[in-house]
Amino acid sequence: MEAELQRLLAAVRPLDEAAMEAARSRQSRLAKPPGSLGKLEEISIRLSGITGQVRNRLDHRRILVLCADNGVVEEGVASAPQSVTAAQAVNMTRGKTGMSALASWFGDEVQVVDMGIACPYECPAILDRKIAQGTQNIRYGAAMTREQALRAILTGAALAAQAQADGIQGLGTGEMGIGNTTTSAAVLSALTGAPVETVTSRGGGITDESFARKKQVIAESLRRNAPDAADPVDVLAKVGGFDLAALCGVFLGAARCRIPVVIDGFISIVAALCAARLCPAAAGYCFPSHASYERGYALAARELGLSPWLLLDMRLGEGSGCPLAFQVMAAACAAMNGMATFEDAAINDGYLEEIRAKDSFTV
Amino acid sequence: MEAELQRLLAAVRPLDEAAMEAARSRQSRLAKPPGSLGKLEEISIRLSGITGQVRNRLDHRRILVLCADNGVVEEGVASAPQSVTAAQAVNMTRGKTGMSALASWFGDEVQVVDMGIACPYECPAILDRKIAQGTQNIRYGAAMTREQALRAILTGAALAAQAQADGIQGLGTGEMGIGNTTTSAAVLSALTGAPVETVTSRGGGITDESFARKKQVIAESLRRNAPDAADPVDVLAKVGGFDLAALCGVFLGAARCRIPVVIDGFISIVAALCAARLCPAAAGYCFPSHASYERGYALAARELGLSPWLLLDMRLGEGSGCPLAFQVMAAACAAMNGMATFEDAAINDGYLEEIRAKDSFTV
Repeated sequence: MEAELQRLLAAVRPLDEAAMEAARSRQSRLAKPPGSLGKLEEISIRLSGITGQVRNRLDHRRILVLCADNGVVEEGVASAPQSVTAAQAVNMTRGKTGMSALASWFGDEVQVVDMGIACPYECPAILDRKIAQGTQNIRYGAAMTREQALRAILTGAALAAQAQADGIQGLGTGEMGIGNTTTSAAVLSALTGAPVETVTSRGGGITDESFARKKQVIAESLRRNAPDAADPVDVLAKVGGFDLAALCGVFLGAARCRIPVVIDGFISIVAALCAARLCPAAAGYCFPSHASYERGYALAARELGLSPWLLLDMRLGEGSGCPLAFQVMAAACAAMNGMATFEDAAINDGYLEEIRAKDSFTV
Repeated sequence: MEAELQRLLAAVRPLDEAAMEAARSRQSRLAKPPGSLGKLEEISIRLSGITGQVRNRLDHRRILVLCADNGVVEEGVASAPQSVTAAQAVNMTRGKTGMSALASWFGDEVQVVDMGIACPYECPAILDRKIAQGTQNIRYGAAMTREQALRAILTGAALAAQAQADGIQGLGTGEMGIGNTTTSAAVLSALTGAPVETVTSRGGGITDESFARKKQVIAESLRRNAPDAADPVDVLAKVGGFDLAALCGVFLGAARCRIPVVIDGFISIVAALCAARLCPAAAGYCFPSHASYERGYALAARELGLSPWLLLDMRLGEGSGCPLAFQVMAAACAAMNGMATFEDAAINDGYLEEIRAKDSFTV
């Protein structure tokens, strides 16, 4: 599987510079002050670099929700029992959770994937890609074997390839896994060298005591496992989770398939950072959604050169920011595709000429 | 018209507390950790206070774009010629500007209104509510008479009433008027007592020299006119514009008609602050869109108790943030209407019970 991962990484191409230059050129000819659509312009240009087309659409979208349990919950780092992972995975397939209600409204597909749910459940709508019934407790050793980590990554990449085969034009990422802010903080600290204190938040409403324990457990896990920062697969195997590894694979797979992919939340952005460390070109295919409350989010976003688009104080997880992020991307496409250019002869009766090269209309 | 304004103000009712309590109760029963949908929850609750219904929809939306010229442009405070106001008003009716391309994509109606465009144009699609061919130069006296200000406010309120008659469920606000960041800064400074320096930005790409002149002109206008901060109509008449006054009327009219209304950008938020000073209850009907670059925006937002939802570095004006703001509001409705409650017997086979009273799933 090492060779398969290397083939995956080698298959990721950089963004298409010629298409981006053509997109920039069209943006400069649209009837508006240069740069006045801000990030919508940047998004449209990057989409061109991904697809090779100046005009793009995002009509077919899918949110992949990677679910897995984490052995470290034995340490009391989470407020919810492990059974919630399975329960909420089931609920997400029914279109009635926060993410799935939003996805349903906006017309986004949802694919819930079991990468390693610990508790039993019955739900044929969940895609079974279970690697094990949860990971091992990272306080006492590696979360998983290197082979398991590789398998999870390649599974995520295969999900992206399937999306491409299904005609999907935009992917979103979500996750469900009690204990996964603990593993994500551990991975982020390992990758960046940032102190545990600066990348760890309370997650969901744990007590002061549990929060102190959470930070201690992360620090002990890092000491015990000594993950190699230069080897993201080693980091994911030793202190990560099946959800994180699979998400990392989704980002790599989306990049290989040239599909834009939305990062949503702390766990997702840590996985994206793993992908970018394995293959820097993959970062070009990633888009942010909303700002996360988790302390480590901002660090990971800086490392990836991304700043979030939405300030909605959401902290539900599940990929619940993806539906609105897709709408922002659709807006970027609509402006690029629907605005007149200065040269647009059909409507150029003098009114458009007036605004050429103005910096702003409202001065 | 003073009496008509007083009737308008008296007709604005506070938000429906009983409906908001029912909405809060439903939010607390939705299958998610309390508060985890952040501002989407607040939006849904406020919409309930506006309509009196727990479940709301935002299927029919209209963006009102108020256009007018400002005599103060004689002072060299703007980089664009006055003719741009007319030209861009025409362009907006054609669906090809930034705002109108986005509105078209998302299915929002656009109504462009001439409140006082100075230059001639031919465009039957623009609604003619012209009060005069631009205002007077505020450096040397009042922008308009008090009667004109009242007429502009009542015209804006009538536009909101027409929207209600047309079945509109959400209004957006936009503007076009060269020189209107100058008048908006003057109005904001007059209303709040904030120093000119702290509420004035460069607007669209003016030189250092023009920027210094802009601040000087605003300060002189305020000294010369001595607007009464306790009387927003006086402030609008003396240092405002027809666009600002009409927008103020749109906010008041939307509140009277119990229609949610989106603030978009600096000019719009200054008008909303005028409306809230005339009638504090009107603020409850106003929703923000994206964060503006203009320095004064944050001050006005604080005064109104609003924080923006979108961080897209947009500075186009026109009401171009409204289409995405409407989608955020639609998302709030979709979550409220589409999520399961814990009590939802139809799907309550035990999986939902698991997540009751949890603070977060991703801990």
